[in-house]
Amino acid sequence: MTIETQIVDIATAAGNAAKIMAAVPRKQKDAALTAMAGRLKKNTDTIRKENAKDVAAARENGLSFAMIDRLTITDTTITAMAEGLTYVAGLNDPVGTLSDSSIRPNGLETARMRIPLGVIGIIYESRPNVTVDAAGLCLKAGNAVILRGGSEALHSNMALAQIIAQGLADAGLPAAAAQVIPMRDREAVDILLKQEALVDLIIPRGGEGLIRHVVAHSSIPVLKHYKGVCHAYVDDTADLDMAVSICVNAKAQRPGVCNALETLLVHETIAPDFLPKIHHAMTQANVSLRGCEASCRILKHIQPATQEDWPAEYLDLILAVRVVPDMNAAMAHIAEYGSNHTEAIITTDYANARRFVREVDASLVIVNASTRFNDGGELGLGAEIGISTSKLHAYGPMGIRELTTTKFVAWGSGQIRN
Amino acid sequence: MTIETQIVDIATAAGNAAKIMAAVPRKQKDAALTAMAGRLKKNTDTIRKENAKDVAAARENGLSFAMIDRLTITDTTITAMAEGLTYVAGLNDPVGTLSDSSIRPNGLETARMRIPLGVIGIIYESRPNVTVDAAGLCLKAGNAVILRGGSEALHSNMALAQIIAQGLADAGLPAAAAQVIPMRDREAVDILLKQEALVDLIIPRGGEGLIRHVVAHSSIPVLKHYKGVCHAYVDDTADLDMAVSICVNAKAQRPGVCNALETLLVHETIAPDFLPKIHHAMTQANVSLRGCEASCRILKHIQPATQEDWPAEYLDLILAVRVVPDMNAAMAHIAEYGSNHTEAIITTDYANARRFVREVDASLVIVNASTRFNDGGELGLGAEIGISTSKLHAYGPMGIRELTTTKFVAWGSGQIRN
Repeated sequence: MTIETQIVDIATAAGNAAKIMAAVPRKQKDAALTAMAGRLKKNTDTIRKENAKDVAAARENGLSFAMIDRLTITDTTITAMAEGLTYVAGLNDPVGTLSDSSIRPNGLETARMRIPLGVIGIIYESRPNVTVDAAGLCLKAGNAVILRGGSEALHSNMALAQIIAQGLADAGLPAAAAQVIPMRDREAVDILLKQEALVDLIIPRGGEGLIRHVVAHSSIPVLKHYKGVCHAYVDDTADLDMAVSICVNAKAQRPGVCNALETLLVHETIAPDFLPKIHHAMTQANVSLRGCEASCRILKHIQPATQEDWPAEYLDLILAVRVVPDMNAAMAHIAEYGSNHTEAIITTDYANARRFVREVDASLVIVNASTRFNDGGELGLGAEIGISTSKLHAYGPMGIRELTTTKFVAWGSGQIRN
Repeated sequence: MTIETQIVDIATAAGNAAKIMAAVPRKQKDAALTAMAGRLKKNTDTIRKENAKDVAAARENGLSFAMIDRLTITDTTITAMAEGLTYVAGLNDPVGTLSDSSIRPNGLETARMRIPLGVIGIIYESRPNVTVDAAGLCLKAGNAVILRGGSEALHSNMALAQIIAQGLADAGLPAAAAQVIPMRDREAVDILLKQEALVDLIIPRGGEGLIRHVVAHSSIPVLKHYKGVCHAYVDDTADLDMAVSICVNAKAQRPGVCNALETLLVHETIAPDFLPKIHHAMTQANVSLRGCEASCRILKHIQPATQEDWPAEYLDLILAVRVVPDMNAAMAHIAEYGSNHTEAIITTDYANARRFVREVDASLVIVNASTRFNDGGELGLGAEIGISTSKLHAYGPMGIRELTTTKFVAWGSGQIRN
């Protein structure tokens, strides 16, 4: 059997399973997720044994410490996966719910009914917990899911896939509703990306290289973000202590993630007062600054920023700093270098807050709080499957609802059109 | 200047105009639409003179009567375009409105704010009124629009483009917010479809050939429907007189449109009673039937259907008829041959109505009413820019709201993440 035949078979089976999943009541989907959680905890040894094979191979192949760390499944990881499934089982099921109901002048009753998308392909890198987390969300939303993790995690992912399949079977659901692609070949991804007749959506999760590859090769709609170059603009009216607290949190609380702060924009009026404060606080948090000319005049010992710093996603304990003449200049900087991910303003001015929120184009625009809040859990969506900076369909964190769409429904009593 | 340079210039100018349009208050957008409506009525002679050039060329080139009819602008067409703009000016502006507001446990106030998509490309065939109708909707939603009509309508479209640009200028808005591609070259379309860095959405409107070409060549997301193969299923519990009235309306009221009925599915229990009734009514409406074997046993003189009839979009006074053993078989037929456009059930049974609505996958599923109601105006969206059978972003008629998306906004008082 060629790789192409295998992928088409997987996608076809997923399509058939999706038709069943679309009409399944919530109880049955929740039972499957709960069964998976139970089986995860019961099979800790098997999972860790399979994972150990991947970790050993990764060590032999000289993978970096960070990559091996991401690849390793511990008892804590397994507990977290099981708890994640239980949490998703407890979330409301959007499928079949009605919204935007209206009664037309002719008496026709119309509404939008939420329905699953169908078949979702998830393409991701090393972390094997994505296999379980993504499957749980896609299944809860009534979809079938095809999972393609990093080739270095194949043993781990196949072990998790078996547990997911058994959980589906426990609840009387088709195992083909969640399938892991059982081969390492890179070709498999590109073949999957061309199955637009069978797959409804692709969500890539990983580094910018992976995502650019998926977008370039997919004939299926892709929801993605390339990177997060997030800014905080400290207005001349800002509460400076609040600004320090927010910026340090946004930068240093977890520097390696996409909603971490990368560039700080400071109104020139408060720069002489604010920059020394933020420099002191950032230094204590082990963050080093790279400043524009004006910043370097105030903070004599920091490294000067170059043109490359403005579009940089450091994902590290480094922060670019730029002094701006006013909010217009801050907004122009964000429009030029931002990534439509997360943008914050710290201000006490009503008009500035409103204008910044209205005019800045980013998946989250936030006033007087940390950029780190761009997260499905923090914004009240429950669990999230990722953050989209694509504007169509979903812009921002994607929860269960973003894994569904709506169709129109109408109830009549014999209406015909004139 | 090469065609590519021209298209990139148009798209770049559209992008800059989109940034301005996104922040413009409703009053100014409505003023532009109203100014365009006034200018349309004042420039009837110019428009008709330019249109006459297109019509004369079309006659010389031997275009069909139907095509020339679609191309021709009459005083009535101009009045309808002007009234359409005035109607859209009267619709609510979704931009800046908030939904899904919540207060998080830490006091952060979150919501989704509706924002324009950005730059929208509309690719359509002969009718020049699309130029005005589509521009009006896109502009009202705060977008910039690039219009590419049929090459046979270029004089007409350029005349309309000038009026639109003047209307924008009257209201102090950038003329580049609505541009017609000023050349006939087919290459221009394919170049436009590759401007994914500048254009956010493509909406093709026309025959299946045009739409397939656009989908195959676009690197920009496309919202489209290929065709409408719409079914009505007459359940064994149906009110047969209601079923006749609905089916005749769905088939014959305007047979050339995508929400017209193409195949009738009849429960076998009522077929002997219902088929003669519907045959009589359809014959009176000049509709000829093509029947399955069982239908032909009851209606001896109708043409037998072949395998090609089931997926056919006739767009004509022809109706395929199939007798089915039960609703399951009807739903299986729809799943196999339907186009996810519009599906109707005529029934008096509560459980069947609910199950059909829930399980049939179409942009509108309708009970006891005509398929012709799949239309933005009829479903309460105001004017529509087309119907989507793409599931992502919009599924069904697309009104102003479907030309926008939402971003997350959050108001804090110093919240940081733990």
